[in-house]
Amino acid sequence: MAVYTEVSDEDLTGFLGLYGLGEVTSFKGIAEGVENSNFLLRTTLGTYILTLYEKRVRAADLPFFLGLMQHLSSKGFACPLPVAGKDGESLRALCGRPAVIVSFLDGLSPRRVQPEHCRLLGAALARMHLAGADFALRRENDLSLAGWRPLFELSRARAHEVRPGLAEDLGREIAALEKTWPRDLPSGVIHADLFPDNVFFLGGRLSGFIDFYFACNDLFAYDLAVCLNAWCFEPDNAFNVTKARLLLHSYRAVRPLAPGELEALPLLARGAALRFLLTRLYDWLHCPQGALVKPKDPLEYWDKLRFHRDVRGPGDYGLD
Amino acid sequence: MAVYTEVSDEDLTGFLGLYGLGEVTSFKGIAEGVENSNFLLRTTLGTYILTLYEKRVRAADLPFFLGLMQHLSSKGFACPLPVAGKDGESLRALCGRPAVIVSFLDGLSPRRVQPEHCRLLGAALARMHLAGADFALRRENDLSLAGWRPLFELSRARAHEVRPGLAEDLGREIAALEKTWPRDLPSGVIHADLFPDNVFFLGGRLSGFIDFYFACNDLFAYDLAVCLNAWCFEPDNAFNVTKARLLLHSYRAVRPLAPGELEALPLLARGAALRFLLTRLYDWLHCPQGALVKPKDPLEYWDKLRFHRDVRGPGDYGLD
Repeated sequence: MAVYTEVSDEDLTGFLGLYGLGEVTSFKGIAEGVENSNFLLRTTLGTYILTLYEKRVRAADLPFFLGLMQHLSSKGFACPLPVAGKDGESLRALCGRPAVIVSFLDGLSPRRVQPEHCRLLGAALARMHLAGADFALRRENDLSLAGWRPLFELSRARAHEVRPGLAEDLGREIAALEKTWPRDLPSGVIHADLFPDNVFFLGGRLSGFIDFYFACNDLFAYDLAVCLNAWCFEPDNAFNVTKARLLLHSYRAVRPLAPGELEALPLLARGAALRFLLTRLYDWLHCPQGALVKPKDPLEYWDKLRFHRDVRGPGDYGLD
Repeated sequence: MAVYTEVSDEDLTGFLGLYGLGEVTSFKGIAEGVENSNFLLRTTLGTYILTLYEKRVRAADLPFFLGLMQHLSSKGFACPLPVAGKDGESLRALCGRPAVIVSFLDGLSPRRVQPEHCRLLGAALARMHLAGADFALRRENDLSLAGWRPLFELSRARAHEVRPGLAEDLGREIAALEKTWPRDLPSGVIHADLFPDNVFFLGGRLSGFIDFYFACNDLFAYDLAVCLNAWCFEPDNAFNVTKARLLLHSYRAVRPLAPGELEALPLLARGAALRFLLTRLYDWLHCPQGALVKPKDPLEYWDKLRFHRDVRGPGDYGLD
């Protein structure tokens, strides 16, 4: 939630001169995303979002992210569509940063998740996985198994500040996942960060996904595991099996899950919990003192991880 | 630039049920204003801003601010217009805070002020002063002469941290202004915070003023003095006499200035500089360490104050 880069009048005018979007009628910073600067741009032709990519997004990954949004849109999957300039290019530079204009996506992200949201989410996630099947570019998931240990090392020495014994617990958990992590399950393009912030609903429908800046090639069921953690726990960290059942059932109705995917789900959900725990732990320990934006509690994800470690089988997720 | 209050789905739905604005299609926090939480609200009927007033705005002042926007709009002066609910009320509560929906005002605030902006500003400011003449409510300016000494006392002991000798300089300046501050000049409703952020331009016209949350009854020429400081100095704090001349000439063409107002302008501009210096000094000294939003430099306004102290007459502002 931030606007980091100030865009001058001259820079904006020069930049928009490269597009055929009519005259600007409004330009406002919006509180969306934590990684980039986002502006609501209204012109005589329509409404758009202008994004300037700040340093946490690697410029080399942008063709993958933007190409994916174009690909999914072309398949009828609703997401922001990068707008091409008069030269046909959608990615260019503004204020020394990579910048892109995308179409404005209607809808509201849920502040409080209801079971119906999970039902709609499951089906949409499966449709996204199918729609991405023939996308030509590839991007490794640098926040999966191979990334966890290096990320952990950046926080290990101070992890006890968050909870005594956390470093030891995490070390054991990473070692256990390294031994058992599944490799031969169906894979393809996944969103990898599908929190409620990134899903819009409108009039009882799911109106689209946004923020594809962690998208990558990985196991489809891992995306489901991320959603289990982000959508199916209550604010007190209690697991809501009704939400999980709706999520998984509606996913399976569009893209059936292989037996191996179902069996691996508890392990994948532990890994997905670990991934967000590790990035939150890093942000927690490296946040400037007194910062206005308080980092998210990493231990929320330790509770979720422990839940999945105790799961005996898919039945605990509401499946038959 | 912040969104402080999270509005839940249920709260938003319940709140909007009190209005006849159609169905919500989008709801996003926007980075506008530093005092309140602002959301861009799009519905099937139009685009609006929802504002939740945080603690720095006194609820008792809201009828003045909202009434003023209604009054000015009814006179054809462009500004956000509070939207009434089905019960005819525009001010109500949301998430425990006073809240109001206003119409969306098209336009862009200039990041870099050009002389033409100053010319358009002067005429619009005079039109606002005339349009507000028969507004029935009154609000004292609590950040004018009587407010400076108490505000100074909150920062006096630590003012030397910003610049050695600053406390003594400010004490002398306040004493001097207390002796000479003009009282019998034309007065009425003024905006009192007309920085470039709060003025929108569109297609070579000035499209309106926003953010009336410092508006009050005070000397008209004091509003001009605020604008001289906010619009007519360059980034290196050099005074731009061309901008000042355009501002004052275009103001006078709509509302002629009495000789006493012209004579008092240097004094009023010193006072206006002092007012922003004191609030910036307070914010600077009381900002949490490491905060992401860096407070504005108070000394910028000391430079401006000294400029006006050296002014020999209206000629230094480009007037005949």
